[in-house]
Amino acid sequence: MAFLNENYLKLKAGYLFPEIGRRVKAFSDANPEAAKRIIRCGIGDVTEALPAAVTAAMHRAVDEMATREGFRGYGPEQGYEWLRHAIAENDYRARGLEVADDEVFVSDGSKCDCGNILDILGRQNKIAITDPVYPVYVDTNVMAGNTGEGNEAGAYEGLIYLNCTAENGFVAEPPKEHADVIYLCFPNNPTGAVATRAQLEAWVAYAKEHQSVILYDAAYEAYITDPSVPHSIYEIPGAREVAIEFRSFSKNGGFTGTRCAFIVVPKTLLASTPDGKRLPLHPLWLRRHTTKFNGVSYVVQRAAEALYSPEGKQQVAALIEHYMGNAKILREAAEAVGLRVYGGVNAPYIWVSTPKGTTSWQMFDRMLNEANVVITPGSGFGAMGEGYFRISAFNSRANVEEVARRMKAIAW
Amino acid sequence: MAFLNENYLKLKAGYLFPEIGRRVKAFSDANPEAAKRIIRCGIGDVTEALPAAVTAAMHRAVDEMATREGFRGYGPEQGYEWLRHAIAENDYRARGLEVADDEVFVSDGSKCDCGNILDILGRQNKIAITDPVYPVYVDTNVMAGNTGEGNEAGAYEGLIYLNCTAENGFVAEPPKEHADVIYLCFPNNPTGAVATRAQLEAWVAYAKEHQSVILYDAAYEAYITDPSVPHSIYEIPGAREVAIEFRSFSKNGGFTGTRCAFIVVPKTLLASTPDGKRLPLHPLWLRRHTTKFNGVSYVVQRAAEALYSPEGKQQVAALIEHYMGNAKILREAAEAVGLRVYGGVNAPYIWVSTPKGTTSWQMFDRMLNEANVVITPGSGFGAMGEGYFRISAFNSRANVEEVARRMKAIAW
Repeated sequence: MAFLNENYLKLKAGYLFPEIGRRVKAFSDANPEAAKRIIRCGIGDVTEALPAAVTAAMHRAVDEMATREGFRGYGPEQGYEWLRHAIAENDYRARGLEVADDEVFVSDGSKCDCGNILDILGRQNKIAITDPVYPVYVDTNVMAGNTGEGNEAGAYEGLIYLNCTAENGFVAEPPKEHADVIYLCFPNNPTGAVATRAQLEAWVAYAKEHQSVILYDAAYEAYITDPSVPHSIYEIPGAREVAIEFRSFSKNGGFTGTRCAFIVVPKTLLASTPDGKRLPLHPLWLRRHTTKFNGVSYVVQRAAEALYSPEGKQQVAALIEHYMGNAKILREAAEAVGLRVYGGVNAPYIWVSTPKGTTSWQMFDRMLNEANVVITPGSGFGAMGEGYFRISAFNSRANVEEVARRMKAIAW
Repeated sequence: MAFLNENYLKLKAGYLFPEIGRRVKAFSDANPEAAKRIIRCGIGDVTEALPAAVTAAMHRAVDEMATREGFRGYGPEQGYEWLRHAIAENDYRARGLEVADDEVFVSDGSKCDCGNILDILGRQNKIAITDPVYPVYVDTNVMAGNTGEGNEAGAYEGLIYLNCTAENGFVAEPPKEHADVIYLCFPNNPTGAVATRAQLEAWVAYAKEHQSVILYDAAYEAYITDPSVPHSIYEIPGAREVAIEFRSFSKNGGFTGTRCAFIVVPKTLLASTPDGKRLPLHPLWLRRHTTKFNGVSYVVQRAAEALYSPEGKQQVAALIEHYMGNAKILREAAEAVGLRVYGGVNAPYIWVSTPKGTTSWQMFDRMLNEANVVITPGSGFGAMGEGYFRISAFNSRANVEEVARRMKAIAW
C-alpha cells in the first residue's frame, strides 16, 4: 500500500495567486465590459520585452544548436563555467566580495531553489520566517514536514514567525529564541523594505552565535537605489560562514518566462550531523544538484550570460529605471489619496496600509470593483500582512499612470 | 545549530558518470595523442543537431519575447495548455489511451521528475528497484531517507532489488514480497530490454493487488521497433489506477541540452494516508509542481510543441532511424568478435557481456586503452550489472563505424 506524504494534507487551500485568479475570473465573468479595463498590479511579473542583448544571444545559441558542430547536449548540471564565472566575477568579485566560480550553482528559478534547499537540511531544524513572507518559504517547509498543523490564518505550529511591522520598518530583529534556519529577503517581497548594514550585521552575529544557516533571498537586489544598502549578504563580514544567497534573473533581466537563477553556497558554510560533527553543505548541494537536476537549457544560459555584457548591463539598467519610475508614480498616487505608503524606493513593490477598518481582501475587492485594478492583499503573505496591500510596479508606464488616475478617483 | 540531511552521508562516492570522466581525463593527460582519437559511447547523450522544426520554433519564440506585445512572463507551472494538449493528444489519445490534458505536467527533465516525485510519497514506503538500474532512482531514495546504509557494491539496506539477468531477459518479475513503490524503465536503460504486454500486465496486476504505485520511465519509447511492445504503461488496462509515467524529449527530439520532459499523473491514481484513507496523488503533485517549480522556459515549450508538427514528427523519425542504424552496426560488431549481445533493437543501448574473467571496469579500461572508446561499465548500474558493459548508439555514423572497426581490432 503506497503511502502519500501526509504533510501535504496540512497545507491550507489555495496558494495566494490562484485565489486572486479565481476572484478576477469571477469578476470578469460577471462584468465583461469592466473586465476589458482591468490592469494587473498583482503578481510580481515583469511586463517589458527581453533586452536586445539577450534575444540576440538566444538567436545565436539556437543557430548553434541547429548544427551538428554547434550542438550542445547535457551540460554541467551546475551551469556552464562561462556563466558561473560571469556571475561570480560581476555580481561579487567586482564588488570586492569573495565568491568562487564553483560556489555558484545555476538553476531554472529561485522558487525551485528556495524549495529544493530544504533537501540538504535536516528535519530537526527549527525554522524562522518573517511575517509577512513569500508563501513558498512556508509551504515548502510544510511539505517537508518541518511544521505542525496550520491554523485558519495560515500560521503553522513549529515555525518561528518574526513579525515585520510599520514599527520596526518591516525588518525583524533576531529573535530571543534559538532558530536553526532563517529566511531573510531583502529588498523584501512583499513589503519593499530593505535591511541596513547594521541590521544584517545583527543577523550574521546571531547566526554565528547559534550556528544557524541564513537563507538570503536577494532576488530584487537590482532595485536598490540607496548606496548604503547592501546588495548581498556577503557584504557582511562572516556571512560566508552562515549564509546561502539566492539570486534570480527574473526581475533584473525580465526572465520570469525564460527561467534562470542561481544560488551561492560558500564552501565555508557548515552544518551539523545529529552527533554534532560540523560538515560543509557545499558537497551536499553539489550532490543534490547533480543528481536531481540536469542543468538549465543551453540557450537560456547564453541568454543569462548576455546580461553581463556591456549592452546587457545598460539594457537591464534601463528596465530597472522604467520599473522604478513606475514605483514612484504609484507611491505618490497612494500618498496623494491619504494612504500610508512603504517600499517602492529600493524595490518594485509598494506596500500600502488599507483605510482603517478595511481588510486586505476587502481592499482587493474594492480595487477590483471600483478601479478595475488587481492588487495583492497583504494578508495573503501572512497574518501580519492584514491591513496592507501590495502594488507591483511591473507594468507599462501608460498602465501605471492610469492606475494612479483611477486610485485618485476612488472615494477614499 | 543547523542540521544537515544526514541521509546524504550514506551516499557512496561518485555518481557513475563523474567517475568515468575522471578516468578519461587521467588517460587523456597521460596519453595526449591517443586522447585525440577518443570516441565517447559512454553517457547516453544525443549528438545530432536539433530538428529544423524545433530551431525554427525557437527563433519565432525568441522574436516574440523581443517585443512587449509578444513577451511572456510567468507561464502556468504545469506547462502551457497548448503543449499539454499536444502531448496528451499525440502521445496518448491518438493511440487510444485515456490521458487528459491536465494529467500532463511539463517539466525541465525526467531526472528532476524522477527525484521530485518522492516529495509527494510517504517515507514509510517500501521501494523496489531493478538491478541494474539508472542510478538516480537509488540515489534520490537514499537522499530522501528511504533506505538504510549502503554496502561496498552500492546496494542499500531497505530497498528491494529485482535482479535482471540474461536468464529473465533483463525483465524482472513481480517479487513475492510486498513493495509499495516500484520503478520500472522500458525500453530499459542500461540493458536495452523491453517488457512484453504480458509482463507489464503482471506488474499492473501486482500493483493493484498490493495497492502499489509504479513509476514507469518511458524516456526511450520512441526507439521501440517491435509493434507488439507497449509504448506506454497505460496500454495495460488498470494502469491508470497504479502508475505514473515519465516521458522526455531528450532522446526523441534531442533535448538533452534544451531541457523539457513531462509526467502523467492520472486522477484515478490513489495512495494512502497513515490511517489508511485512500486519496488521489494528482492534487499533491499539482501542489508540489506549482509551489516548487515555475514552469519551463517559454522558448523551450515552443520547441517541444514543434516536435508534434508534421515536420517535427518526420525529423524525429529520421533521428531515431539514424541512431538505430548505429545500434545495428554496434550490435553486429560486438557479435562479430564473439561477445554476447543484448538490447539495441528497441533501444539505443547495447548491453554486452564482458569476456569471461573480465570485470566491467576492467573492460572499461581496456576499451579506453586499446580502442580509445569510452563505454559504460555495467557495474556502475548495480551489482547485477557486473560482467556487462553498455555501448550507447548516440553518435555520428562515422564514429560508430570507427568504433566497430576498433572493436574488431582488439585481441579478444
